[in-house]
Amino acid sequence: MSTEKLQVAVVGLGRMGMRHARHFATLTPRAHLVAVCSPVQAELDAAKNEFGGHLRTYLDYDRMLQHEPTLQAVVVASVASAHAEQAVKAIERGLHVLCEKPLSTSLEEAECVLAAYKKSLLTRPGQKVMCGFSRRFDASYRDAHARVARGDIGVPSVFRSQTCDKLDLSTFTPAYSGIFTESSVHDIDLTLWFLGEDSRVKSVFAAGITAIEPALRERNDRDNGIGIVEFYNGKIAQLLVSRMMAAGQEDTTEIIGTQGKIAVNAAPQLNLVHIHDATGIRREVPADYFGRFREAFITEANEFTASCLNDTPAPIRLDSTVNAMKIACALQESMVTGQKVEFDESGQRVSLAKL
Amino acid sequence: MSTEKLQVAVVGLGRMGMRHARHFATLTPRAHLVAVCSPVQAELDAAKNEFGGHLRTYLDYDRMLQHEPTLQAVVVASVASAHAEQAVKAIERGLHVLCEKPLSTSLEEAECVLAAYKKSLLTRPGQKVMCGFSRRFDASYRDAHARVARGDIGVPSVFRSQTCDKLDLSTFTPAYSGIFTESSVHDIDLTLWFLGEDSRVKSVFAAGITAIEPALRERNDRDNGIGIVEFYNGKIAQLLVSRMMAAGQEDTTEIIGTQGKIAVNAAPQLNLVHIHDATGIRREVPADYFGRFREAFITEANEFTASCLNDTPAPIRLDSTVNAMKIACALQESMVTGQKVEFDESGQRVSLAKL
Amino acid sequence: MSTEKLQVAVVGLGRMGMRHARHFATLTPRAHLVAVCSPVQAELDAAKNEFGGHLRTYLDYDRMLQHEPTLQAVVVASVASAHAEQAVKAIERGLHVLCEKPLSTSLEEAECVLAAYKKSLLTRPGQKVMCGFSRRFDASYRDAHARVARGDIGVPSVFRSQTCDKLDLSTFTPAYSGIFTESSVHDIDLTLWFLGEDSRVKSVFAAGITAIEPALRERNDRDNGIGIVEFYNGKIAQLLVSRMMAAGQEDTTEIIGTQGKIAVNAAPQLNLVHIHDATGIRREVPADYFGRFREAFITEANEFTASCLNDTPAPIRLDSTVNAMKIACALQESMVTGQKVEFDESGQRVSLAKL
Amino acid sequence: MSTEKLQVAVVGLGRMGMRHARHFATLTPRAHLVAVCSPVQAELDAAKNEFGGHLRTYLDYDRMLQHEPTLQAVVVASVASAHAEQAVKAIERGLHVLCEKPLSTSLEEAECVLAAYKKSLLTRPGQKVMCGFSRRFDASYRDAHARVARGDIGVPSVFRSQTCDKLDLSTFTPAYSGIFTESSVHDIDLTLWFLGEDSRVKSVFAAGITAIEPALRERNDRDNGIGIVEFYNGKIAQLLVSRMMAAGQEDTTEIIGTQGKIAVNAAPQLNLVHIHDATGIRREVPADYFGRFREAFITEANEFTASCLNDTPAPIRLDSTVNAMKIACALQESMVTGQKVEFDESGQRVSLAKL
Repeated sequence: MSTEKLQVAVVGLGRMGMRHARHFATLTPRAHLVAVCSPVQAELDAAKNEFGGHLRTYLDYDRMLQHEPTLQAVVVASVASAHAEQAVKAIERGLHVLCEKPLSTSLEEAECVLAAYKKSLLTRPGQKVMCGFSRRFDASYRDAHARVARGDIGVPSVFRSQTCDKLDLSTFTPAYSGIFTESSVHDIDLTLWFLGEDSRVKSVFAAGITAIEPALRERNDRDNGIGIVEFYNGKIAQLLVSRMMAAGQEDTTEIIGTQGKIAVNAAPQLNLVHIHDATGIRREVPADYFGRFREAFITEANEFTASCLNDTPAPIRLDSTVNAMKIACALQESMVTGQKVEFDESGQRVSLAKL
Repeated sequence: MSTEKLQVAVVGLGRMGMRHARHFATLTPRAHLVAVCSPVQAELDAAKNEFGGHLRTYLDYDRMLQHEPTLQAVVVASVASAHAEQAVKAIERGLHVLCEKPLSTSLEEAECVLAAYKKSLLTRPGQKVMCGFSRRFDASYRDAHARVARGDIGVPSVFRSQTCDKLDLSTFTPAYSGIFTESSVHDIDLTLWFLGEDSRVKSVFAAGITAIEPALRERNDRDNGIGIVEFYNGKIAQLLVSRMMAAGQEDTTEIIGTQGKIAVNAAPQLNLVHIHDATGIRREVPADYFGRFREAFITEANEFTASCLNDTPAPIRLDSTVNAMKIACALQESMVTGQKVEFDESGQRVSLAKL
Repeated sequence: MSTEKLQVAVVGLGRMGMRHARHFATLTPRAHLVAVCSPVQAELDAAKNEFGGHLRTYLDYDRMLQHEPTLQAVVVASVASAHAEQAVKAIERGLHVLCEKPLSTSLEEAECVLAAYKKSLLTRPGQKVMCGFSRRFDASYRDAHARVARGDIGVPSVFRSQTCDKLDLSTFTPAYSGIFTESSVHDIDLTLWFLGEDSRVKSVFAAGITAIEPALRERNDRDNGIGIVEFYNGKIAQLLVSRMMAAGQEDTTEIIGTQGKIAVNAAPQLNLVHIHDATGIRREVPADYFGRFREAFITEANEFTASCLNDTPAPIRLDSTVNAMKIACALQESMVTGQKVEFDESGQRVSLAKL
Repeated sequence: MSTEKLQVAVVGLGRMGMRHARHFATLTPRAHLVAVCSPVQAELDAAKNEFGGHLRTYLDYDRMLQHEPTLQAVVVASVASAHAEQAVKAIERGLHVLCEKPLSTSLEEAECVLAAYKKSLLTRPGQKVMCGFSRRFDASYRDAHARVARGDIGVPSVFRSQTCDKLDLSTFTPAYSGIFTESSVHDIDLTLWFLGEDSRVKSVFAAGITAIEPALRERNDRDNGIGIVEFYNGKIAQLLVSRMMAAGQEDTTEIIGTQGKIAVNAAPQLNLVHIHDATGIRREVPADYFGRFREAFITEANEFTASCLNDTPAPIRLDSTVNAMKIACALQESMVTGQKVEFDESGQRVSLAKL
């Protein structure tokens, strides 16, 4: 194995940005964090303090790209609205890109990123661009996927997945794009991974309620949603997404095949402790996605790095991410309109007029 | 407590009929099984052999009703196609009726039974007529319902339930009316019980596939289905029904409230045994609904008996059963047509023309 | 199957006596409860009220035996100190006996009951006398035993079992004979059942503490105990017994074999409900042995009845019960003296002088 | 936080040694692996290949100590028979020491290491010497310990713990010192941690069998053992150790207090996947301790490093380790002799003559 290290910069040093910086700086042996970028000087100072004096810091993203000629990869972890533009700029410079999810705040932008990547690939076939869906790097999901892939459950046919977040009113902000586009999109990404990346969506239908926050309706959102996705290959998916769990984060997935079933996290748990007291026997649950998927993010950093250095396929296909976003947007729309959204076999929306 | 015993007859002595007869004859202290009816002489002989020489047997249902003047209650457990007619005849004679599910093979017939009962009640206010949805008598579902009813989870808002049967091709017969009307109807009954018996359905949508048996399409059925139900009170339900489980019967329900969640049977199990061997740690699962709900059927027999003798409300409202059937039929239709089915606030179907 | 019913009387109508009466009167189709006996008139009245006017009641046990010439079986459920004498009297009259546990309050008395039974068997080979260790009738323990018996785990070699009762200071009375003789004896009975009824004990050692009630030391008891049993066949057992559980009753058993392991009730639960709230995910636990083993007691009544009527072996061997008591007494003694108690291969105590 | 890095060397590059080297080289941000030592040149080459050309390699331990004047800490991960001597040499040079378990192959040697450390501390109060009991760094055990420490279960009184390894005949070698001294010592260390590091042992008793390998008796060992430990503070511990698990490693601990209980790993699992197939619902189990405790070893490396750099107390007291070894040796002896081993309140063995 080469001892060359991937020269990485992180843009965005909020909560997730700092975590990515930490993972690349200290827990990814084959990577070297050389620069970070944030519009907030205090965040830059904190990074320098934690990761050492060698770290170069930038208030401006373009300036970083210009002044780091040896840079090989950028981790985009800024505000969601900047993801697409920053990704495209890095792509055009030939850098590898790991973009924190979401890839963009609109499907159109996402398609632009994909187009930029496809164009860049023509001259730089080894370039890697990937959106970080952390669950794909989780040991349990991977074990499940390996079992499905080798046929242990026959033909995977019905996919059921739920993302249920602990109630946290501080996250009920306009920056949260929508319950399907922001939360359920993880389940949709998994749907494609488990049912086949090339599964073509046929229709979606969704319903939602506002059990906690009626004002969400004003921005076309709900606090609980359920959805159905049909594919042209005769497979179906059932999604549930909730933002009002009391115990913690409960993300569960079931893959039902013709000869068996695999369940992931059917019994959510924080760790291996059970507490026996006058109320019964109890276990705690992770408070949030990072409590559940921290290890997966570290694996993501390491595997992204390895794919760049070894020129092996990136762990997640960018077109699959865009496809997941398309389905998520359609579900969000269906939830609001109450109408089924249909696609033809080429992936184009069937206009309502044609129905 | 009165020592009077309810005089009961069972019509239909197939697998479920014999079980009902057994429960009333030997495990319901306040009931007395006096007669049974079946068109099959061998079944009558078997019953007489098991339950004793005092038992009176009939090949003809009408004849039984005529010749048993002291009869107080009939358990209808014949073929589904006979349920409605036999129930109505018993109702009109003023007998209490426990009708095995389904109440009928069409929604119209079910409404006729309800109408007959309402009419009969005008002159016989103590008469009990109930369709036996066994899960309502299960100790775990009852514990869950009591918790929800006393507000432990705040406002129950999202209901998720699945009926997943072990694959058994011998049950893939035309007598099986449909995956939503025959299997998922249990979950729909629970939906009404948990979200409120008076919840008015607003719309349903469903999708289904034939992963195992494509020929089901010829009779407008599928072997796996997923569905969504919206209610006018701002609550929603998500249903999954599958007939191809490998391990056994896996019926799971989750009730998500604004302040907590209750799950029933999230980890299906046959009993309290875990087997540790070279394949890991394993538990078995009940092979079928009776393996899971045997105790519930016995409780059902005892509580139906008590409601008749004590003149307390029957454990399940007959109008709720008809409502569940209405929703089940709409889901079955939606699965086949791919169209959402809508209802107005009075419960009437909204015609497609109006959409 | 014969429709003859076993004519049964119950002596003792305390909590467990009434339960036995109920099980034989209403949930054991092949039995007929004809008489009950209690020194408390109110208990007799209550029984008559619940089970009907046909029931004959007695304040005196001897009188009942004299005045019930058609009686076939007696269920002894009186105070423990009366068990042995009442059992012997019934044995000598040729009656079948189901004696609630313990068989007696001393090992010597237990041996007298066994001797009386062995003598009676010489002339009445069909007579059944059994001490009711309810766990032997539990569906999970039976499933486990069947797996072990057919070799699923190879040679069962290490047996671990614990009886952990919910803390209930009202049970800390002198009537409770001792933590090993009263509670752990269930695990010892299981030890013999799983490791082989003819396993000969080689030595025992135990230790105990008084975490809750130091005064127990005055009557040679403790509130928590741990013990080791060695057998001459090279198998060992590890026991734990506690009277201070906070959540409820937690009785767990593991049978470790050379090729696998079976666990019974490794995850105690009241039912199939999980409660998700701000404290995590929780299940409740049965409050006491009856909450855990009610079904087993009903099975016990039915199987004892069947063995009497069919003249098949009683479900539990009486000599095995006496053997379990011998081990329990030795453990109780070891816990108090701190000395290992040893037995020779013929089952005789090895005197300390010989050590 | 200082950006100084701890200069670390690892001696011994077998399976565990390489893991320690990897953890310090790549997953401990505050440590810098500067040298490794092994008598096997190929192991040195492999380390250099994996960790980079800067790494200095030594075939001789003394030579390494002499030629690395800036070295601050040594990780001793060589063959067990070399641990004590290598630890003492490092201690005498003033180096911090993390010694892989066991600290030595005899209690006497362990006491020598402790004596050397105590002497060294007189002049170097900041020196850290610790034996690596990995479970102390496991997130679940720590959560459990925190709950016990803050009184959640009242007074911890009964401790039950088991180490059950997957059957692997290749580990049945003379290098394995004994079932209590090598495996159960982990549970004993936990016993002291949970019941109080200053708990003084009063007596131990053990029994064991050879279910798999009778030849173990020749070296005074068994393949399954059970033990009891009594402390002068009125607390007791129950241990089980087995080397013949079929499914994988099953290490379970229960701490029973006067007001509750904490269980760790009562339901062993490899990950969050459940497999539903014709045999039931199944999960896998880690194959060995590293599958269960990998994260704990990484935490251990980081916390040992932090305690050295920050001069905070080492995570595990060395005298507690020696105490655990004393108890383990006594249990091993008791298992072989069948005699209880007693200690007076000062910790001295009570001679058999005095009994």
